[in-house]
Formats: sequence, structure tokens, C-alpha cells
Amino acid sequence: MKIQPRTLSGFVELLPKQQILMEKIMQTLRETYSLYGFTPLDTPAIEASEVLLAKGGGETEKQIYRFTKGDSDLSLRFDLTVPLAKYVALHYSELAFPFKRYQIGKAYRGERAQRGRFREFYQADIDIIGDGKLDISNEAEVPAIIYQVFNRLGLKKFQVQVNNRKVLNGFYQMLGLSEQAGDIMRTVDKLDKIGAEKVKELLIEQGVSEDKAGEILAFIGIKGSNEEVLGALDGYQGKNELFDLGLDELKTVVKYLSAFGVPQENFAVNLTIARGLDYYTGTVYETFMVEHPEIGSICSGGRYDNLAEYYTDKLLPGVGISIGVSRLFYVLNEQGMLNEDMNTAPADVLLLPMVEDLSPAVELATRFRNAGVRVQLYGEQRKFKAKMNYADKIGVPYVVFLGEDEVRDGVVACKDMKSGEQTKLGFDETLQRVRDGLAKKNEGRVILG
Amino acid sequence: MKIQPRTLSGFVELLPKQQILMEKIMQTLRETYSLYGFTPLDTPAIEASEVLLAKGGGETEKQIYRFTKGDSDLSLRFDLTVPLAKYVALHYSELAFPFKRYQIGKAYRGERAQRGRFREFYQADIDIIGDGKLDISNEAEVPAIIYQVFNRLGLKKFQVQVNNRKVLNGFYQMLGLSEQAGDIMRTVDKLDKIGAEKVKELLIEQGVSEDKAGEILAFIGIKGSNEEVLGALDGYQGKNELFDLGLDELKTVVKYLSAFGVPQENFAVNLTIARGLDYYTGTVYETFMVEHPEIGSICSGGRYDNLAEYYTDKLLPGVGISIGVSRLFYVLNEQGMLNEDMNTAPADVLLLPMVEDLSPAVELATRFRNAGVRVQLYGEQRKFKAKMNYADKIGVPYVVFLGEDEVRDGVVACKDMKSGEQTKLGFDETLQRVRDGLAKKNEGRVILG
Repeated sequence: MKIQPRTLSGFVELLPKQQILMEKIMQTLRETYSLYGFTPLDTPAIEASEVLLAKGGGETEKQIYRFTKGDSDLSLRFDLTVPLAKYVALHYSELAFPFKRYQIGKAYRGERAQRGRFREFYQADIDIIGDGKLDISNEAEVPAIIYQVFNRLGLKKFQVQVNNRKVLNGFYQMLGLSEQAGDIMRTVDKLDKIGAEKVKELLIEQGVSEDKAGEILAFIGIKGSNEEVLGALDGYQGKNELFDLGLDELKTVVKYLSAFGVPQENFAVNLTIARGLDYYTGTVYETFMVEHPEIGSICSGGRYDNLAEYYTDKLLPGVGISIGVSRLFYVLNEQGMLNEDMNTAPADVLLLPMVEDLSPAVELATRFRNAGVRVQLYGEQRKFKAKMNYADKIGVPYVVFLGEDEVRDGVVACKDMKSGEQTKLGFDETLQRVRDGLAKKNEGRVILG
Repeated sequence: MKIQPRTLSGFVELLPKQQILMEKIMQTLRETYSLYGFTPLDTPAIEASEVLLAKGGGETEKQIYRFTKGDSDLSLRFDLTVPLAKYVALHYSELAFPFKRYQIGKAYRGERAQRGRFREFYQADIDIIGDGKLDISNEAEVPAIIYQVFNRLGLKKFQVQVNNRKVLNGFYQMLGLSEQAGDIMRTVDKLDKIGAEKVKELLIEQGVSEDKAGEILAFIGIKGSNEEVLGALDGYQGKNELFDLGLDELKTVVKYLSAFGVPQENFAVNLTIARGLDYYTGTVYETFMVEHPEIGSICSGGRYDNLAEYYTDKLLPGVGISIGVSRLFYVLNEQGMLNEDMNTAPADVLLLPMVEDLSPAVELATRFRNAGVRVQLYGEQRKFKAKMNYADKIGVPYVVFLGEDEVRDGVVACKDMKSGEQTKLGFDETLQRVRDGLAKKNEGRVILG
């Protein structure tokens, strides 16, 4: 009796060619985060439930993979932020602040499986944690790094949308609607879906006066260039301290974003961005693909005042942002935006030894590998045609044949599998040819457009 | 009420400096496996219990993290081999054979926590899977890759010990002891710990005749150079078909290991290596640190005839080997064998802007980053002394100061934090100085000796 092999619904398992594209994305993330001086972290996927769920409540708790092993009540992490909070509280005295870390790892949520929503998914997070305080410039650096990440990946048509929670909360304070602010923001969030008229109706149903509903719609209706939006916000100044503070922060972040080299088309102030209710306290971000707003935010985050309040009395303000890598990859694939012209073969060169003694083949492979060329040595005793079929199937760019003639003459027979052109040259010339071809193949980015 | 932050016993969580050394190891593993034409795979950490435990029984099953979520009976993977078997059976028609893959990922076993044994641990596996058959040369290539991995990591005093299950099974067939072979091998495995006399006693207690016990001890006592051991095995030839086949394989693997460039001191035939009972069918490997045999094998594997027999009728022979990365890292750390002279700071350069406008600092950081230098921009408003304390604490090799003078004169003030030497040079000269210094710092390997 055989067991039917299967992979669980909602769990990602890529075929080799796609996995190589995913690896290229991961490598770009690691490299870029490192270039900005973020240190890599790796925390366990399992934590004590008591620790992981210290905050408790909410939608998330229902989705958690929680179980017991022996006497231990355990849970799989549902994001990388709570483990970071635990890490910083636990190792506080051994860390230097501001503590800049990146983490790329799997998180788990038992959501209802649906297209592009996964139960096991990669997140790629960066956070900057201060000890007691943290400069506002960090709130611009974080989205600037995200801009660089997408830039290096090849994604062009995206926009980081920025808002400030103090601006929002201050505005609702002005209207005397602080208590209802949460409900109002949830309604306002539907603006793009249901339109302004319907939002106004709903607000009035929620008990907001018609005047105030009008003011809210006027406020969230502020559009235009960043300069125009900030200019319009100036009109609200001087009425509420929190609002003024937030506007000042927002202006500083916008100024710094330019200083950090983010082009105007890649970031915009958007007053409808709110991001949850109780966690973020300053700048908030969401990132959209300009031509695919229906996909929702592909990278979100913001400023928080107290990372680890459930674990420590220390005040640890921070700012962080997270790319949902598994979901992004799924979307890019669906949209045909993954660059399949890249070399996704397991090797750059497939080496076919045509003589029994493997030593010269190993020697040749070693020379290529020492030059950074990935070589797969084909050791199977099969017909020539089967070997070439294999080369085709893995999509390897070059096949090198090593027969008695080549060994004797000290030359390398090398076939470009795309053009079909075959050369018989010395090692150095062959290496140059292979390198040139690979450089051309890899000059593109993983993401198209 | 605060929750005490803690990390579960048996789970690894490294501090930043150690994590960077771990990342260097991971990167070397990825690069080396890729250079040999292995494709990366990433399978879920959670599988349906029915699938993961298809084989059933044994010690492993008790250690498994198994739980239900909704109607699903789920388990965390306990190794990377069973998920590979599932993957190959499930995606058979979309793969090219021989299928060469590497996977570096976490696995889970609820073992009793003890020093160097972890409940969540990284394994780094390579396997080569054939469709129907697989050439013997693969059984030499796999340990040759492991030799390269350790070589690149800097580990020198290690030995891959090789044996062949057919030789062992054939030998016990000769003695008419096939039935007891399992028990005998388990006793023989204690040779190093309890000595030959005691092993002989135990064998006799197990019902082996004194003569045969003597023959067993003579057999496993065969020592010497690979040539000497193979020469001694020749004396047993011609009596058992399986033995003769195994000896032939062993000789071929030894010959190929030399051809694959593995020096004699790094591999040895060891007739006491057996590796479990029912899975491996040909060559088997264990790897020891020559000066720390007490640590046990740091990398093991072997040849198997039927990877996915629980899932498919297809015959899928393979050969694979696995490095227990978390355990190896723990041992290296315990032994003081991790190279702490390497740059383990989050950045190569800490950039301290001494003027309010951040733009020139960002511009300078960008030039360094485009040249591959990792730059952390320090944006906090703090006293100079606090900034330098931070630089010391993260152990950054260079600090760059950017004040009004430097901006005006277009120069870079750069301090080597180790020598204390400070220069004021143009960008290109500063970059060269930093690069030279980093190259020197990174010329060592992660593992010492």
C-alpha cells in the first residue's frame, strides 16, 4: 500500500526553476539589507505560547498553530515582530542601540487557504530599535531601503505610500471623535472600494454628524503631489498639538526620503493609510504596485513607540517594515513578471566525460568552479542522446564534452545550447566565452518592470 | 504584569556576532553546493502526518512534533530526506534525473535537551536521485563535495570514513550470521568505547560462537592505509557474491575519491561504520574531527536503493549526505574553533554625519554601498562620545566622519578602529584603504584548523 504523496494546501513548494528565482530574490534581500548595516537574526519558529501570545486577543490568535509537547504549551510564530520583541527584551544588555536587524524567515498562520494567502510564508523584515528614543530620520531610511530592494530586484512601478498616525489621531481629536476614530478609520479604509458617497452614508450611520462626515471626506480627499498634500495639511495647523507634531514628522520624513535618494514617483503621502489601531504611533507605510493596486500592499510597516512592553519596562521605540515574500512571489508569477530568461538551470555548464577515467573531467570541472562557474558533472553511463536530452531538460546554457581528443590536445569542446554553436578552444578562451554568455544572461533583473 | 521573555530550551538563538559567523557558514554551503550543480529546494516544515510518517515506527516517531489544526493531523519534519522523497514522488514527471538538489533548512525533534542536541536544528543536505539506476561515481562525488565544503570553511583535521553495506552484509552471510547481523553491528559499534575483549564477550553472550566472534573481531580489526585495508579484504574474496560486489564498489569509490581530488588524509575506509539498518544499501559515510572523535560524526550519509518506496512504485536509487549545521556550529564554538577575528559587525563602515543636512551623508553612503561596502548611517542626535561607544560596541572596522569641512573640501575622514589611524583622503583613496583592510580581515576562514 502506497501513501499518496501530497503537499498541504496553503503551503508553498516550488519546482526547481522557480526555486532558483526565489533564491535570487532572497539573495538580493540579504545583500541589500546588509549593505545598509543591518545584522541578520534567526530566531526559533517555535516559542512558548505564553511568550508569543503575551499581547493576546485579536484575529491572529485564532489562526495560530498551537500545540502541546510533553508539558509545554507551544506556538509557531505568526510574524517576526513578536519574536524580535522577545529577543531584544531578553538580550537587551548584550545589544547595541540603535539595534538594526533584518530577518528573513517563515511564519505560520492557519488562515482559510485562498489564492496567494499561505499558511506558511516567508517574511523579510527590517527593524531599527532605539533605547529610550529613536531619531525621526530612521522613519525615512526604512522605506528608502525598501526602495533600493525593489530597485535591485527590477520592480519599477511601485509606490511607497506614507502617512502619520499622529496626523490622523490629531485630526479626529480636533473633531472630538477620538473615541470613534478606530471605527471611522475602518470605514474610511473602504473608500477605494465603495466610493466617497457610500463612506459618508456609513459614517453618518455610525453616528458622525453630517458636518463632521463632510470634514472627514474633505480631509481624506486631499490628493496631489506631496507638496500639495502637505500644503493642504498646513491649513489644519494650530488647532491640535498632536496633529501639529505629526505634520512636522510627516514633513521631515518626506524631506529625508528625497535626501535618501527615493524618486518622487516612488513615494507619496496618502492620508487614507492607517495600518491597524494600537501598535503604530508615527509614520506608517504601505507599498503598492502601481499597475496592480488590486493586489494590496506588498510591503508594510511603521513607527511604534514601545516594541516590547509586554516583556520589559524599558522603553524601546522602533520602526520597521516587512515584505511578504511568498505572497509577492506568487503575485509576480501570476502576473508573468518573473524573468524566466534568467539562468534557472542547476548549473552553468554540464560536463559530459566521454572517457572512462574521470580524473581529467574532475580536473576540468575544478578549474571552472575555481573561476566561479557552476559545473555539473554527468557521471551516468547512458547514450549520447539521453545525455543531451538531460541537458535540454535542465536548461543548462553550456555543455562541455571531454573525449580522448580533447584530453590529448588540452582543449575544451563547448556547446552553447541556445545558439547551437560549438567551439573547441583552450580552457581560458572557453572560460571567457562562458563568462561572457552568462553575464549577458544574468544582466537582467529577477522582476520584469 | 510583564511576561518573562525566554527562548525554549533546546532551541538555538544566537547573538548578532555569532549569527554573522553562522551566515558565513550558510553562504559557503549554498555557494559550494551550487558550484557542483545542485539545485536549491525548499519544502514546507509542516507535512500531513500520514505522509511524513509513511514509514512509521522507530525512535523517531516518539520525538515528532505532531498536532492537529482543524481536521488536519500535522507533523513538523524531523529530517530533510522524507520531504525529499515526497517531493520527488509528487513532482516526478517534472524533474530531470539524475536529480541533484541541496536543501538547507530547519528540522524538529523533541529530544531530551542536552548539550549540543537541539530540538530545532539546521541540516544541510545534498542528494543525487537516479531514475531506475545511478552510477557508482556519484557515491564518490558526494563525499568529495563535503571535502570541498569543509575545505572552504577552513576545517582541516577531519576525515570522511567510508564503508560499504554490501561488504558488511556479505561478510555476515559468509559466517551464516545474516539474521543476527543487526545486533552484531550494534555491538561492534561499541568497539572504540569498550574495547575488543569486551565486544567479543558480548558477541558470545549474543550466541555467536567463539570462532566466529574471533573472525568478526579480526575483520573489524583490519586497519591501515586504504590500500592495506582493501588488500586485506581481497583475502575474503570469492566466497560470497554480495561481498564481492560490495568490495568492488568500495574499491571504485576509493579510486574515484582520489580522482575527485580528495587527499588521502581526508578519507579512510573504516569497516566499523554501519549507519542504521534498513535504509542504506551501498556506500556509507561518517565524518569525524580528527582531534575530537568524542564529538561523533559531523556529517553522515550513504547510498540507498529506494528513496520513495512508500509513495511510488518507481525505483529511485540515490546517494546523499547531511551536515548537522546547528550541532557543528555548537561544537566549533565550544572548541574555540570559530574565527572571531573575522568582521562580525553589522557594517564595514559606520558613517557619522556631523552636519544637519543628511543629503551629503546619504550620497557618500551610496557611493560606498555601490562599491559593495556595507555602511551603517548613524542618525541619532547624541554626544560624540556616545557615538564612538556605539562604534566600539558593534565592533565596526571603520568610522567615517562627515562634517562641514569634509563636505566643503570633498574629502572623507576615516578612522581605522583597530589601529586608531585616521586619514583625510578623497573618496577613491578612502575606498581603497577600506577595501584593503576588509580583504585582510576576511582572508581567514570561518573555522580555525
